[in-house]
Amino acid sequence: MKQKIKQQDKHGMKRRGFLKKAAVGATGVAAATVAAPAISQGRQEIVMVSTWPRDFPALGTNAQRFAQRLTDMTDGRLNVQYFASGERVKAFDSFDEVASGNAHIYHAAEYYWKGKHPGFAYFASVPFGMIAPECDAWIRWMGGQELWDELGAEFGVKGFVGGTSGVQMGGWFRKEMNSADDFKGLKFRIPGLGGDVLAKMGASPVSLPGGQIYENLVSGAIDGTEWAGPLMDSIMKFWEVAKYYYYPGLHEPGTILGFGVNKAWYDGLPKSDQLVIEACAVQTHFELFSEVNAKNPGWLQKFITEQGVVLKKFNEDIVDAFGEAAEEVFEETRQHSDLTRRIDDNFRESMRAVAGWLSIAEVEYFKQRNRVLGIGI
Amino acid sequence: MKQKIKQQDKHGMKRRGFLKKAAVGATGVAAATVAAPAISQGRQEIVMVSTWPRDFPALGTNAQRFAQRLTDMTDGRLNVQYFASGERVKAFDSFDEVASGNAHIYHAAEYYWKGKHPGFAYFASVPFGMIAPECDAWIRWMGGQELWDELGAEFGVKGFVGGTSGVQMGGWFRKEMNSADDFKGLKFRIPGLGGDVLAKMGASPVSLPGGQIYENLVSGAIDGTEWAGPLMDSIMKFWEVAKYYYYPGLHEPGTILGFGVNKAWYDGLPKSDQLVIEACAVQTHFELFSEVNAKNPGWLQKFITEQGVVLKKFNEDIVDAFGEAAEEVFEETRQHSDLTRRIDDNFRESMRAVAGWLSIAEVEYFKQRNRVLGIGI
Repeated sequence: MKQKIKQQDKHGMKRRGFLKKAAVGATGVAAATVAAPAISQGRQEIVMVSTWPRDFPALGTNAQRFAQRLTDMTDGRLNVQYFASGERVKAFDSFDEVASGNAHIYHAAEYYWKGKHPGFAYFASVPFGMIAPECDAWIRWMGGQELWDELGAEFGVKGFVGGTSGVQMGGWFRKEMNSADDFKGLKFRIPGLGGDVLAKMGASPVSLPGGQIYENLVSGAIDGTEWAGPLMDSIMKFWEVAKYYYYPGLHEPGTILGFGVNKAWYDGLPKSDQLVIEACAVQTHFELFSEVNAKNPGWLQKFITEQGVVLKKFNEDIVDAFGEAAEEVFEETRQHSDLTRRIDDNFRESMRAVAGWLSIAEVEYFKQRNRVLGIGI
Repeated sequence: MKQKIKQQDKHGMKRRGFLKKAAVGATGVAAATVAAPAISQGRQEIVMVSTWPRDFPALGTNAQRFAQRLTDMTDGRLNVQYFASGERVKAFDSFDEVASGNAHIYHAAEYYWKGKHPGFAYFASVPFGMIAPECDAWIRWMGGQELWDELGAEFGVKGFVGGTSGVQMGGWFRKEMNSADDFKGLKFRIPGLGGDVLAKMGASPVSLPGGQIYENLVSGAIDGTEWAGPLMDSIMKFWEVAKYYYYPGLHEPGTILGFGVNKAWYDGLPKSDQLVIEACAVQTHFELFSEVNAKNPGWLQKFITEQGVVLKKFNEDIVDAFGEAAEEVFEETRQHSDLTRRIDDNFRESMRAVAGWLSIAEVEYFKQRNRVLGIGI
């Protein structure tokens, strides 16, 4: 515990709120578990914050379902009170709220915390990185979770998978993008490492919260924006200003949504509750990815037929330039620390191994079946 | 309950063992839950049977982990005793054991029960059918689980997803397969609908339990066999007799492993325990698919470099013939009943929608990234 406090201090965080009480309580519970069932611990009020607006498609709704399900799974012993972004703290304060012990759980995408440590980006999505099944294999079986735990422990947080967007769309553009040169001077809303890659291609990446993108598109302050995918883009109406909808999302090829729990609190829970939280998180992971895959096709068709959206594919010139720029960004990112280098190495090695397998399994089969059955957009 | 008993009688099953007692107990518990926490229900001994040998890679080990985890998640309230195939009943008696109330849970692949109802095959894998992310979207969000529940209820069983093998390998062959004609007269071990498809291509499909395949290959009684994928094939040593290892597995493109629970028992559990079982099943689903994707690449490399296995791809002539034969098999399968037709319709419609989306998302991205990074087998 001492070491953890020291490490948290290193990152300049205050330890407030429930944490000290919880730590004391937790010791009591842990001792009690040996003699009596976990029942004796009684009811805990759990504070969960998230980075999504209330009821936001897939992201908000799945986080809310997690909160309700965890309450129901424990018959109210872990009684989760859910706060959407802004209802308790602003979206990007969620991490500190949990790390400091003011809240127990957050739901977010870990790349939001790359300013704290660039290693976090790998546990959400990095440009030209893994697709969802590659991420899953890496995190669960190839060393990813262990590295995530090592990174999180520096901040007093433990991460769990909590959804995947799948490969996102490349974004909404006012004009056709015919070559890598068309990115030169482009004012494009895109945060994180994806923005760093576009900057190397000569674009001017802009970071804007979701609620300010539309007005900036209308005013011409930006030429385009990425967001997520058809289901999640459906309430944004970017097509009113930028009709060209490009795929695939080279910048976010399988964004994992993640839960973070306050580590001291979690470590003090009985094993049974730890396992319930983990399983509940994994179920959210499953439900979110399958939801976007179930609903994206219908929304995409609606965009095209009802809104006049023009679906376009990035050509190889653009993909090649993006891939090259991504490599440069990673070379820089790796310089940050030994841990970042180890994460990057493990990530790349795992990606190559799993991708080789998937190319002869899922992808070769998918291609052949679709050819014979005439399936495709 | 009366209707359920009637339906079970329709399928000629005996109702024995714990079920009547459980039903009475369950009513008591349900009433008690309102007044007191679920704790008061005390400890239940849960019998779980499976269709896998003990410690069988991925299949057995994940089923065993589920049993232990469910016990641990409930702090022993649901104390699961696990029986591998043959330890309590033979593999293919697992369904009856659960339907009749002699056991609470099985882990299997639902196509094993296609003799009871061909609709079950869709909830495992059908030839030329869905890949794993398509299955997940269909089952969770597009009507699949509802149809599975309707089908299971006829037998007093409720199904849950419990793993995916991903696209399997096409199998082990003594000789190269250069055209669809090479399947004529081929004695090939392959059960289920995949066998029906090969029969239409002129092969002689043979159904053999895993433990008898090797000796039949050695004796020449069969010319080849399908099994699963590199991790699961690793203990079978088929390469000693049949060196050509073909991909992709057109006959099993994403085999879901499933749990079945005795419905009357499950319906009588408190909501919290139902949710814990569901989440625990979904976690197994996640862990099994990610395990095969993590471990298949290493095993495949070992086969090639250490055992002289020759990796081969089915050519388009073979794929086309297989696809055509599969359509004929489905036309026949659909004739069985209204429910089978509705399952087949919902399955195909969902597959086309999700596949269209995945082709521009996961697959287009995957192809482009691998091209730029030089990833592939």
